[in-house]
Amino acid sequence: MSKYKLSRHAPGTAPGTLVTSESALPCVIRAIAYNETDLVEVNIEDPDQLKPLMEQWKMIWINVDGLGTKSIIEKLGAIFGLHPLALEDVLNPYQRPKVEEYGDTVFMVMRMTHFANKHLVLEQISLFMGRHYVLTFQGKPGDCLDPVRERLRKGAGRPMRQGGSDYLTYALVDAVVDGYFPVLEHYGEWIDRLEDEVIFEPTQQTIERIHHVKRKMSRLRHAVWPMREMIAAFSSHIPHVEPQTRLYLRDCYDHVIQVLDLLETDRERASGLLDIYLSSISNRMNEVMKVLTIISTIFMPLSFIVGLYGMNFDTSSPFNMPELKWRYGYPMALGLMAAVTAGFVWFFKRKGWVWQGK
Amino acid sequence: MSKYKLSRHAPGTAPGTLVTSESALPCVIRAIAYNETDLVEVNIEDPDQLKPLMEQWKMIWINVDGLGTKSIIEKLGAIFGLHPLALEDVLNPYQRPKVEEYGDTVFMVMRMTHFANKHLVLEQISLFMGRHYVLTFQGKPGDCLDPVRERLRKGAGRPMRQGGSDYLTYALVDAVVDGYFPVLEHYGEWIDRLEDEVIFEPTQQTIERIHHVKRKMSRLRHAVWPMREMIAAFSSHIPHVEPQTRLYLRDCYDHVIQVLDLLETDRERASGLLDIYLSSISNRMNEVMKVLTIISTIFMPLSFIVGLYGMNFDTSSPFNMPELKWRYGYPMALGLMAAVTAGFVWFFKRKGWVWQGK
Amino acid sequence: MSKYKLSRHAPGTAPGTLVTSESALPCVIRAIAYNETDLVEVNIEDPDQLKPLMEQWKMIWINVDGLGTKSIIEKLGAIFGLHPLALEDVLNPYQRPKVEEYGDTVFMVMRMTHFANKHLVLEQISLFMGRHYVLTFQGKPGDCLDPVRERLRKGAGRPMRQGGSDYLTYALVDAVVDGYFPVLEHYGEWIDRLEDEVIFEPTQQTIERIHHVKRKMSRLRHAVWPMREMIAAFSSHIPHVEPQTRLYLRDCYDHVIQVLDLLETDRERASGLLDIYLSSISNRMNEVMKVLTIISTIFMPLSFIVGLYGMNFDTSSPFNMPELKWRYGYPMALGLMAAVTAGFVWFFKRKGWVWQGK
Amino acid sequence: MSKYKLSRHAPGTAPGTLVTSESALPCVIRAIAYNETDLVEVNIEDPDQLKPLMEQWKMIWINVDGLGTKSIIEKLGAIFGLHPLALEDVLNPYQRPKVEEYGDTVFMVMRMTHFANKHLVLEQISLFMGRHYVLTFQGKPGDCLDPVRERLRKGAGRPMRQGGSDYLTYALVDAVVDGYFPVLEHYGEWIDRLEDEVIFEPTQQTIERIHHVKRKMSRLRHAVWPMREMIAAFSSHIPHVEPQTRLYLRDCYDHVIQVLDLLETDRERASGLLDIYLSSISNRMNEVMKVLTIISTIFMPLSFIVGLYGMNFDTSSPFNMPELKWRYGYPMALGLMAAVTAGFVWFFKRKGWVWQGK
Amino acid sequence: MSKYKLSRHAPGTAPGTLVTSESALPCVIRAIAYNETDLVEVNIEDPDQLKPLMEQWKMIWINVDGLGTKSIIEKLGAIFGLHPLALEDVLNPYQRPKVEEYGDTVFMVMRMTHFANKHLVLEQISLFMGRHYVLTFQGKPGDCLDPVRERLRKGAGRPMRQGGSDYLTYALVDAVVDGYFPVLEHYGEWIDRLEDEVIFEPTQQTIERIHHVKRKMSRLRHAVWPMREMIAAFSSHIPHVEPQTRLYLRDCYDHVIQVLDLLETDRERASGLLDIYLSSISNRMNEVMKVLTIISTIFMPLSFIVGLYGMNFDTSSPFNMPELKWRYGYPMALGLMAAVTAGFVWFFKRKGWVWQGK
Repeated sequence: MSKYKLSRHAPGTAPGTLVTSESALPCVIRAIAYNETDLVEVNIEDPDQLKPLMEQWKMIWINVDGLGTKSIIEKLGAIFGLHPLALEDVLNPYQRPKVEEYGDTVFMVMRMTHFANKHLVLEQISLFMGRHYVLTFQGKPGDCLDPVRERLRKGAGRPMRQGGSDYLTYALVDAVVDGYFPVLEHYGEWIDRLEDEVIFEPTQQTIERIHHVKRKMSRLRHAVWPMREMIAAFSSHIPHVEPQTRLYLRDCYDHVIQVLDLLETDRERASGLLDIYLSSISNRMNEVMKVLTIISTIFMPLSFIVGLYGMNFDTSSPFNMPELKWRYGYPMALGLMAAVTAGFVWFFKRKGWVWQGK
Repeated sequence: MSKYKLSRHAPGTAPGTLVTSESALPCVIRAIAYNETDLVEVNIEDPDQLKPLMEQWKMIWINVDGLGTKSIIEKLGAIFGLHPLALEDVLNPYQRPKVEEYGDTVFMVMRMTHFANKHLVLEQISLFMGRHYVLTFQGKPGDCLDPVRERLRKGAGRPMRQGGSDYLTYALVDAVVDGYFPVLEHYGEWIDRLEDEVIFEPTQQTIERIHHVKRKMSRLRHAVWPMREMIAAFSSHIPHVEPQTRLYLRDCYDHVIQVLDLLETDRERASGLLDIYLSSISNRMNEVMKVLTIISTIFMPLSFIVGLYGMNFDTSSPFNMPELKWRYGYPMALGLMAAVTAGFVWFFKRKGWVWQGK
Repeated sequence: MSKYKLSRHAPGTAPGTLVTSESALPCVIRAIAYNETDLVEVNIEDPDQLKPLMEQWKMIWINVDGLGTKSIIEKLGAIFGLHPLALEDVLNPYQRPKVEEYGDTVFMVMRMTHFANKHLVLEQISLFMGRHYVLTFQGKPGDCLDPVRERLRKGAGRPMRQGGSDYLTYALVDAVVDGYFPVLEHYGEWIDRLEDEVIFEPTQQTIERIHHVKRKMSRLRHAVWPMREMIAAFSSHIPHVEPQTRLYLRDCYDHVIQVLDLLETDRERASGLLDIYLSSISNRMNEVMKVLTIISTIFMPLSFIVGLYGMNFDTSSPFNMPELKWRYGYPMALGLMAAVTAGFVWFFKRKGWVWQGK
Repeated sequence: MSKYKLSRHAPGTAPGTLVTSESALPCVIRAIAYNETDLVEVNIEDPDQLKPLMEQWKMIWINVDGLGTKSIIEKLGAIFGLHPLALEDVLNPYQRPKVEEYGDTVFMVMRMTHFANKHLVLEQISLFMGRHYVLTFQGKPGDCLDPVRERLRKGAGRPMRQGGSDYLTYALVDAVVDGYFPVLEHYGEWIDRLEDEVIFEPTQQTIERIHHVKRKMSRLRHAVWPMREMIAAFSSHIPHVEPQTRLYLRDCYDHVIQVLDLLETDRERASGLLDIYLSSISNRMNEVMKVLTIISTIFMPLSFIVGLYGMNFDTSSPFNMPELKWRYGYPMALGLMAAVTAGFVWFFKRKGWVWQGK
Repeated sequence: MSKYKLSRHAPGTAPGTLVTSESALPCVIRAIAYNETDLVEVNIEDPDQLKPLMEQWKMIWINVDGLGTKSIIEKLGAIFGLHPLALEDVLNPYQRPKVEEYGDTVFMVMRMTHFANKHLVLEQISLFMGRHYVLTFQGKPGDCLDPVRERLRKGAGRPMRQGGSDYLTYALVDAVVDGYFPVLEHYGEWIDRLEDEVIFEPTQQTIERIHHVKRKMSRLRHAVWPMREMIAAFSSHIPHVEPQTRLYLRDCYDHVIQVLDLLETDRERASGLLDIYLSSISNRMNEVMKVLTIISTIFMPLSFIVGLYGMNFDTSSPFNMPELKWRYGYPMALGLMAAVTAGFVWFFKRKGWVWQGK
């Protein structure tokens, strides 16, 4: 729950105030400028370096890793004419995915996922799409956009390099959506393993693991659900998007629906595991109870019989336990006990309690 | 969950890239060309063989089994002018059912079901409907479309042979939808058997079987649900569909609704089984507990009494267990024990614990 | 689940094919022809007999019981110009309630309910409404339409006899809807009885009965739910319905809503019974456990004490159980045991386990 | 479930047939006629008495208690020109709340609630609103409308007396809605008490009480839910309502929403109680089990030891129980038993089973 | 449930009647008047003091703490021309959040939250927005609006001081919405702690705490949910709102959605805790049962054996317990017991009951 704690400014602060979180990393800017035939990648120290690049090239993609250097972010805001409210959303990185128009600029927030050191990372990526540029902000280095960079580098003459900022935006959105598939696959396999565990060796940890997966699923769903709406809005309401790109966005929309479908299926499976777990616990308790009952039921009558012949009545009276003096008294007592045991074993077999397996 | 693992290309690949899965079977093409009076069935090796057929006949249905031969699929794409995004969907066979227009061609994805070796098969069938042809792709040989082939062969002069590609498409969609009924019937009967099992001999396996059926139901629902929308869209938005065919599609739409109704009913029944199972387990544990309690309650006091008369107090004192020396001490002790037992049996009868049956 | 098994033709059959089920009863036709002043009831052997009747009378209601005589149904289809798809629905009697227009004819499917030999019957009634006739098909003789027949016979000069086919159709729909009320009342009373049973004498059968009622409720809801939509569509979209009749249909619509309300309430009650049942089982197990615990806790220490004085230590040593030789050793031992028992009884009273009632 | 049993006429009766229930009370009519300055209250024996009153006064409110005198209701129907379908609804007093227009007359059905002898009463009130009159029907005397009567009596010159039939209707609807608040308050307090009961002294009765409250909540919700829609429809679709009155109706609509909110909150609370109850039962069983286990675990080993030294081996052999002849054999045995007991107590303390409180 | 008890006037009271609750605090008025350059804060005793202020300054914000002084509220109503229905809502402080237009004045109800002495406070704030003033009413002193006051004081030349009443209203709404974040953070941390508690030391109190949190979550959701709609309505339907302010309101709307998202996530987590709790209880009971079963199963056979050799058969017969006289009888008996114990320990190990940890 501490997820919105670090970065959220104090309640009631003026809207559009830029406050960088103390724990945020310093900004690292990297630009890829390209046209149909050429491409150049530059590390940027000062946003002012961007101006000549933008004049020279048809398209530029500027990616900012880290949200900690306020001066750089303000300068970028000034250069590209970004709205303060949008910049505020960039710096408070727990926004719901959405798309908004601020004049000519389209502002987009998405949640991007990947695994870093076996931990699920759900990170906000903010995107500004102008006529001839795309500007993206991420909290940390490391993302799922490398395939897009690769396609840019190798794509001379392909749609990737011919398209404008709308096509690049589509490619980024698509990469973000596609990034969910390996994560879902990972959790799908985890649920597979939990399914075995819950049947063959359920422990208290199992339930915690099931719960853990359910929570992750829930977080993913909260991240993906509004992206569905966002892509639909981007594809239909935003003016600068080419018809051809809209076709690709429809494909991308299908992928989001597919992600949601898979999430839904996995959530159902995880919920089903809970039922199996509880019934499995009940079965085990039942089994334990049966062992106890069988043992008690056999040995209690036997203990009674041996106690009976341990009584100290004065055997000089012919009415007091004459069997103690019989020549075959002891074998007869043993026989009686064997008969009682056999009787109970027969009873349990009839009830189907013994040799029935688990 | 590994279902989308094999065939999905790497995240971030350029859209419209055709990647055939390594595990996919090689393509086998079979065409049925027909008009109102004649019909011919041909096995096709090379897609180029299709051109003369298409010139000669009014209608042609080309069915491709297997998605593994990239060259054939690319050639088909070129001949029929299929959009790369649509072909990509054909090769990633875990798409949601949908219908899309690409210019004059209508692209449709459905999920087809049948049993193969007692296992439920849910396979994607992709369909392109042009003016004078229908082109279908399936992953594996074996489908539920034989009745359509039969009706084509025997249907000279009937609507089946008079109709255009819209009617053939309708017939295929209808066959796909009708294919769900035997599958549902199978699961319906399975749930019937589980209902008996859960009442008369519930085991841990029962809960796993119930869960298994629920999961299958859930998969079927995920497959059928979007087909409802798809048929509605096909019937209302697609321009080349004849009014007469729309009437038939309405009928087909009714069938999908019926399938969903049956699925819903079966899901409810399967969920109800869980309740019965858990209450059945509780009842059994209750019964075991009662046996244990009855045995303990009867034999513990008896053991106490026999222990009492097994004490070694010096009976030379008149206060120390004088009953040990009485002439009828032992019969009296037995009588006391019989009385105690009778008392508890009466108590249990009053509580309704004994002879009450299950 | 076998409900759609008998009559459904094989998947992929051509649409509009008429296949009569082998188990269907032969057709019995009965016509009521009437105008404002006169009325005649005729048993029809051959559909051709209908033609003179239809020329002579203003209105005619033809009811067909049994769906097994294919020739008769085909002849009726020819006389009244019924669409093959509609006739197919008549013969596959597990359709969802719906209303459809085929040219001038309105086709309607409803599910009618009544009790036959204490079993709930949910039967399809199919209705064709033309200008001057209403044609109804039922699977079996016996229905809930007798009040309509009675009103026709006695209704000279009343709206029933003045109205056209739309009014007669309304009257039939209304009778079908009203037929649900006694059935619901029956189940309502059954749930009342189950409420007593679940509290006072719950057994494993109780849970099966609750489940049975829930399933019946679910079937009824599946039958009634689409009738709501159907009546709304009939009342608003169908052209030949008089304004006056629309007013009556609004009333009929209210009744369907009422039926759904009652069903919903009963379903909630049945679900609540499950909770009570499970808590009742838990309570009983708790009670059994308490008896076991009380008995064990009292007798185990007592058995220990009597065992103690049954040990055979050599009492010639003054340290070995000197109490065995005391004059009042036995009474003291009895006193000790009484004290222990009293201590535990006090402990249980403080815990509130004894004399607390159920 | 018997709630719609008494008064509902037989299925299939002609619509608009007036059938008074045998158990219905005879009609008692009371009219309040008023204008801005004067007001008169009259008991009416014969509806014809109403005519002069209506001619003389600007507004009249006629209230009918009891629905048993068919002749009076028919006469009222004739005088005010009420539609037979509406009158039928008046006499079948289990209608869903609704508003309907019949020509100039507006017909409204509501469900009114109050406590009579500590029992929740949910009674139908039917209302006809004409130009210059409001006519209300209730099944039984006793309602929540007295504040409206009082405001009429004392309201000379206030909107209450200046307004037309729309304002009076609003005042009645508002009084009906406000009548739900004390009822909800009552149940709210009941749930408060159940919350204490479920934690501190849960019994089988508790679960029945929780269930009882839930059912009442459900009945109230079924009564209120359609009133929301009804007031919205009355406020927006009915022509004769003054703009000023619409403003008041918006306020009234807010109150209905508030009632639904409170109901929803209470339902959630009641459902939560169930969870607490079940976990409370489990806890108690756990506690009982622990006592049993502690007692058994301590005394079983002790009983074994004392039994050991009660064996009758021939102690003349030096290998047979030499400790029986030791001088300090008995104290040593006692010491062994003390050590075993101490060991188990230590074990239970480590497990946290003893002195841990509830 | 007593929450709407104190202040609600009796059912049926005339609408628009102002009734101050007895427990309400007396009114304390504080006004902040400002323009772009200057600002003055005044404590107001008599509402008439407001008139000169309003003439002199461009904008004024009047805040009233306490709703107990009827004369003051009536005077304010007269000065600003407030509708009696709106004032009634101010005094009945359990309204659903909403926005309403009364002529030129916009009336708004919100629910404001903060912690006071570690208790969650959910208080109604009512707001009237006129052309040049904003008038707010709160029940108690203490709110979350101080940041707005601070921004007013320090904001010379900023939008805060340049904007009109719409901007001030936005700022207040935003502060109210932002006030939910710290509260949610608090509950989020509480759920974190409960997650540990439920796994490591669940008690009956745990379930009550979980339930408590769920109830608070539910109350918050009931408060926030309608604010979503309210802000949407305010942003789109209210005429006097500047386009610039609408942009800010969109941001504010995003925040409400975020609050609802967080609430939903926390509710899911709290519900998951319940599952963990119940399975944890089951596990513990299982563990207790196992200890009991192990102890019983080991010691019952041992007790039987020692009882056997405590029988008093006459050993002069060679068939009666000859082992008692054997030289190594006792060691052999001990050996037998050790063997039995070892057998059971092996059995338990194979079952996985011992040394398996929790």
